[in-house]
Amino acid sequence: MQIHNKKLGSQTVKFDNPPKIIAAYSIVGPKEGQGPLSEYFDQILNDDTLGKESYEKAESQMMFTAISETLKKAKLKEKDIDYLFSGDLLNQIISSSFAAREFSIPFFGLYGACSTMSESLSLASIIMDGGFAKYVIATTSSHFSSAERQFRFPLEYGSQRSKTAQWTVTGSGALILGNEGNYPVVTHVTTGKVKDFGQKDANNMGAAMAPAAVDTMVNHFKDTGRKPSDYDLIATGDLGVIGRELADKLIEEFGYDIRKQHIDCGEIIFDNEKQKTESGGSGCGCSAVVFTGYLYKKLMKREIKKVLLVSTGALMSTTSSLQGETIPGIAHAVAIEIK
Amino acid sequence: MQIHNKKLGSQTVKFDNPPKIIAAYSIVGPKEGQGPLSEYFDQILNDDTLGKESYEKAESQMMFTAISETLKKAKLKEKDIDYLFSGDLLNQIISSSFAAREFSIPFFGLYGACSTMSESLSLASIIMDGGFAKYVIATTSSHFSSAERQFRFPLEYGSQRSKTAQWTVTGSGALILGNEGNYPVVTHVTTGKVKDFGQKDANNMGAAMAPAAVDTMVNHFKDTGRKPSDYDLIATGDLGVIGRELADKLIEEFGYDIRKQHIDCGEIIFDNEKQKTESGGSGCGCSAVVFTGYLYKKLMKREIKKVLLVSTGALMSTTSSLQGETIPGIAHAVAIEIK
Repeated sequence: MQIHNKKLGSQTVKFDNPPKIIAAYSIVGPKEGQGPLSEYFDQILNDDTLGKESYEKAESQMMFTAISETLKKAKLKEKDIDYLFSGDLLNQIISSSFAAREFSIPFFGLYGACSTMSESLSLASIIMDGGFAKYVIATTSSHFSSAERQFRFPLEYGSQRSKTAQWTVTGSGALILGNEGNYPVVTHVTTGKVKDFGQKDANNMGAAMAPAAVDTMVNHFKDTGRKPSDYDLIATGDLGVIGRELADKLIEEFGYDIRKQHIDCGEIIFDNEKQKTESGGSGCGCSAVVFTGYLYKKLMKREIKKVLLVSTGALMSTTSSLQGETIPGIAHAVAIEIK
Repeated sequence: MQIHNKKLGSQTVKFDNPPKIIAAYSIVGPKEGQGPLSEYFDQILNDDTLGKESYEKAESQMMFTAISETLKKAKLKEKDIDYLFSGDLLNQIISSSFAAREFSIPFFGLYGACSTMSESLSLASIIMDGGFAKYVIATTSSHFSSAERQFRFPLEYGSQRSKTAQWTVTGSGALILGNEGNYPVVTHVTTGKVKDFGQKDANNMGAAMAPAAVDTMVNHFKDTGRKPSDYDLIATGDLGVIGRELADKLIEEFGYDIRKQHIDCGEIIFDNEKQKTESGGSGCGCSAVVFTGYLYKKLMKREIKKVLLVSTGALMSTTSSLQGETIPGIAHAVAIEIK
C-alpha cells in the first residue's frame, strides 16, 4: 500500500487542501485593552471577573465567549463543527474542559503551555486537510489572576517582579477552519521537539523558550526551502523582549537573520515600560489574541500576506521547578498566507 | 474543491488506510504486577521509584522506558518516528514533557485525564491515515504516589478510602503505529464530547464518567451501524466496578445490551477485594497498560479479533472541585481489529 506522504524534511507537513481560517475572535482583559493592539481586539472586558465568583471560572467563561462569538462570525452552529481543539495553563486544563462542556462538539484536550494556539491550529489543520472534518475550532486562553496564583504567588502577597518576568495575558482567541471562501489559508505546519538548554529560572521564560523557537524556525526553513524574507512577519510568542533578542542572536548561528520580519507576541501586546510588564506578555492567550486579533485582521486587509506563527511554550510545573528541574521549551510553527 | 470526507455520522471517522499497531509495551508497578493480569505485562517493577528521587520523576522515567522499549520491539530508532502523542495526569503533564525531552521527536502534548490512551491513539491514527506520518508513537502514564499526593492527600496521612474510590494505576503503556505487517489495525475513531451529569464526588469517578462512556458508545454504534455483538470485547476504562455496572444499566435505556462484551480496564486490573482497591483501578496508565499488555497480546494471539477501546476521563481539577464544580467526563472510542 502506497500512501501519499505529506511530510517535507524532518518535521514539516505541507497541505494538499490548505484549510482556511474562516473566522476568528479575540477577547481580552482591561490591561490588554489599554495596550498598543487595543484597536484590533474584538472585545475588551471592563471587568476581568466577567461577573464570575472565581478567576478560573472567569477564564473559562472568556473561552466560552470566544468560541460562541467565532461561531456567530462564521454564521455556523455548534452542530456544524466536527472537532474542538483546546488547552490552557490551568491544572488539568479546566478552562478548556469546562468551556467544552457547554458545547456538543467532539473535544480533544491539549497541553502545550503558551504554545497551545499553534498546537491547536496545527492539529486542527491536519484533521481538516486529511478529510476528517468540514469545520474545526481551535482555541486557547489564559488569565493573569488564575495563572499568577497557580504558578507564582497569591495575588494578595504583592510579590516584586523580576526584570525578566512576563505578565500573563488575560484573553482568549478562537478560530474556525473551513474549506470555502476568500480567507487566509494554512499551508504548512512544523511541529516542535522539546528542547531544554538547562535554564532554571521560572522568572525568565523567554530564555527557556528561545532555543525551542529557534530550532523549530530553522527546521521550518530547512524543510520548506523557505527563507525568513519569504514571510512578511514571523511572529514568535511569547518570548518577550529578552527572549526575542536572544532568539534573533541564536538563529544567526544557523545562518539566518530574522530581525526584519521578527515580532514577538509577548513583546508587542503591552507597552512594556508604561504598563510595567517588564519583559512582556505571556500565557496561552497571548499569541492567541495577537493572532486572532492583530495578525488575522492584517491578513484580511492584505496589509500582510504571509505569516509564520511560532507560539512557544515552557513545559515546566511548580512541582518540577521545586524538584530542581530545568525548564523544557517547545515551539510549533504554522505558515499562513492570503492571496 | 471536493475533499473526500471520512466522517461517519456525527462523531466517527472511518479510516481509508487503517494504521497498524506494530508494537506495544507495558510497564507496571509492583501492585499491578501482583494483580490478575500479571502475566500480560512486559515489565513489572520491583521498586516503583525506579531509583529516582521523586515519584514524579519516577513516573516520567516509566514513560521513557515504555517509549524506548516499544522502539526496540519495532526495531525502529527515534529518528524514524514522525510524531509523539502523549499526556498524563500531573499538573502541566510533566511526565510526558520530561520524557519527550529525551527524544528528538516532534511532540504533541495532550490532556484527557484517564481517557488519554484512546485520545493519543485517536490522534495518532488520524495523522497516520491522513498521510502525514510513517510511524507515530502514542503513550501515557500514571503513578499512584504522584497522583495521590497531587489530587488527594499526602501519602503519609494514610487517609481512609471510600468504597467508591479507585486506585491510581502505576504504569505506562506505549504503542507504535505503522503501515506494514500483520498487526492489529485501527479502523474507526469516535471522538467524545464532554458530558456532565452533575456528579460532585471526586471519590466516585466511575459515576462521573459512565454517562460519557455511554454517550460515546451509543454514537459509535449509531455512526457505524455496528452493534455490541460485532465486538469480541468492549473495554471501557476506568469506570471501575461501580461505573461499569452503571454504564451497563444506562446504555440499556438507548436499546443496547453490552453485558456480554463489556469489560472495564479499571475493574479487571486488580483483584479488588484481595488487593483492597475498592471500586478498581484508574489513572491514564490503567487503560494504557490493559490495552498494550492484556488486549494487544490477546489480539496478536487471535484470542480476540475485534475490540472497542473506550478510555474514559474525569476532567476536573482539585481547584474546580474546591470551587464547587461538578465533574465533567469524556470518553473516546477506538475500534481495533486483526484478521
